[in-house]
Amino acid sequence: MLLPDLPKVSPVDRTATHRIQQTIDQKTKPVGALGQIENIARQVALIQDTSTPIADICELLIFAGDHGAAVAGISAYPSEVTRQMVLNFLAGGAAANVFAAQNDVTLHVVDAGVAGAPIENTSLITRRIGPGTRNYLDEPAMTAVQANQALIAGAELGGGIVSPFVAFGDMGIGNTSSAALITHKLLSVPLDQLVGRGTGLDDDGLVEKRRLLQQASARANVSSVFEVLCEFGGYEINMMVGAMIGAAAQRRCILIDGYIATAAFIAARAFENHVLDYAIFCHRSAESGHQIMLDHLDASPLLNLGLRLGEGTGALLAWPIVRSAVSMLSDMASFQSGGVSTRS
Amino acid sequence: MLLPDLPKVSPVDRTATHRIQQTIDQKTKPVGALGQIENIARQVALIQDTSTPIADICELLIFAGDHGAAVAGISAYPSEVTRQMVLNFLAGGAAANVFAAQNDVTLHVVDAGVAGAPIENTSLITRRIGPGTRNYLDEPAMTAVQANQALIAGAELGGGIVSPFVAFGDMGIGNTSSAALITHKLLSVPLDQLVGRGTGLDDDGLVEKRRLLQQASARANVSSVFEVLCEFGGYEINMMVGAMIGAAAQRRCILIDGYIATAAFIAARAFENHVLDYAIFCHRSAESGHQIMLDHLDASPLLNLGLRLGEGTGALLAWPIVRSAVSMLSDMASFQSGGVSTRS
Repeated sequence: MLLPDLPKVSPVDRTATHRIQQTIDQKTKPVGALGQIENIARQVALIQDTSTPIADICELLIFAGDHGAAVAGISAYPSEVTRQMVLNFLAGGAAANVFAAQNDVTLHVVDAGVAGAPIENTSLITRRIGPGTRNYLDEPAMTAVQANQALIAGAELGGGIVSPFVAFGDMGIGNTSSAALITHKLLSVPLDQLVGRGTGLDDDGLVEKRRLLQQASARANVSSVFEVLCEFGGYEINMMVGAMIGAAAQRRCILIDGYIATAAFIAARAFENHVLDYAIFCHRSAESGHQIMLDHLDASPLLNLGLRLGEGTGALLAWPIVRSAVSMLSDMASFQSGGVSTRS
Repeated sequence: MLLPDLPKVSPVDRTATHRIQQTIDQKTKPVGALGQIENIARQVALIQDTSTPIADICELLIFAGDHGAAVAGISAYPSEVTRQMVLNFLAGGAAANVFAAQNDVTLHVVDAGVAGAPIENTSLITRRIGPGTRNYLDEPAMTAVQANQALIAGAELGGGIVSPFVAFGDMGIGNTSSAALITHKLLSVPLDQLVGRGTGLDDDGLVEKRRLLQQASARANVSSVFEVLCEFGGYEINMMVGAMIGAAAQRRCILIDGYIATAAFIAARAFENHVLDYAIFCHRSAESGHQIMLDHLDASPLLNLGLRLGEGTGALLAWPIVRSAVSMLSDMASFQSGGVSTRS
């Protein structure tokens, strides 16, 4: 089988861990009193290989794509909403636009494979693999060639970001289903535990979504990450997988949003294990199943605000916290420079 | 007994709740998909009495004061650190300075009663009630006249802030003990459940802190909020109580930091019940006992990052989230304006 030629992700050099921790412990505060802020500061310092890291710029890549399976009733919204939301992003009206503007993040929208004719807009990054995937209830979502194209296009986009922080968001009606199937196959977690209400299915809708996804899962007995992405991936999800690897290969910090982005991250890690060193988990989604993913990764996300929107909104809300963490390390006085007594 | 002449806090008019909720539900996202962000947006809209609220400016008041009881060994740090940290704030080197600069908040430091001679600095707001309180292990921390002065000075400071958002922070070695005693007396929660390690006591230190605070509590059988603040308050805590009331009386949103600020808020609410309408709880402190306070208030704070520093640091980290919540309501497209289909 064709396998994608993805960039290699090197582990972060942890030699300086103790020295950076000492610097943090000499800041004018009780040892450990800034909790997770200190962990983020230390991680960024190691990634950037300096005790005075910077967090000046962050860019968000929103990958959009449609899912053939959406016709089957796996989502509360019709498939055309993906396209409408891409236009909404381009017009600046979505939650992601508002949060990006508020939190000083540059937003890029990538058409990875939205259904219908190509969208003509000079602000849109066009990397269309096709007009939506095929319906994985009946056949593989995409060919190996298409999966490869999506991964490579993503790796080029992610690797091309020069900012030290890259956030990842998604838009695709039906993509919680794809994310659930990918995670189920890669982590061997029971599928029903991973399937939630998505954009807001009612009880009957949830039962039907679970039934359909069990049917899809039974169709293809696959477990290698590339096969799983062919069978059940989305163009937007697979391109995000590549982009995470591409950005981490360039030693960028990658900001992982919610349910979809974490599923993509799990696939990225199956390709390149060390991508974990570069990941900051931004929020715990209200979509049931996300906690299972986070537990598997031993991840403690920065926020838990009951979000379940996608678009990178959780990453955008977490970005100022990351900036503050980095500025703590770079700008805060030490006991010595601040003239403050240490503990008695 | 002398009782403070504090401003009255009016309840927020909830007439517009349904209309604001409809506006939120018409934004281009599934209903409820922004979780707590939507709650904050609705609360601010009601406080500001508009469906297009603003969150342009936030100011932080850090109240500093010393505690006579600190000589007894209730803290891991010596009392002079309060003064040193005030100088650190004035020099711009503390965590609060760094987070304030990063998150675009104006920081004010108030000397409510730091031990030693007055600090000469034109940037310092001087409202000294005395050079630290008396030792409440032996006698009331302050007289009724002093408690009244602190409350009134706070109300004037809080009421004088013209920004729509006011955050509250503290600095005072020993003040987790004062906060625990105040909360114990006002909520009738067992004292030991409220007493934690503060700036980092070890196991023996925690046992001794609990023993000393039980002794202090037994000395004065009081339950009215004013008496409690006389017996066990701090100048910085009592002034913060007044400032919260003063700001809420002017219909400002008040950003409540962690353990100390929440104890002050509990006292403020005992004076003026409707102060709760104006409060945004910013974070869950790692100081044990804070969860009990939050449960009592039925509060779900925005952040849970393991912070236990004070200085308003939790409020400073939460402020960008509040801004984003408000911008969601004011700037995001509706399904109609964004041309997006509603659910099928």
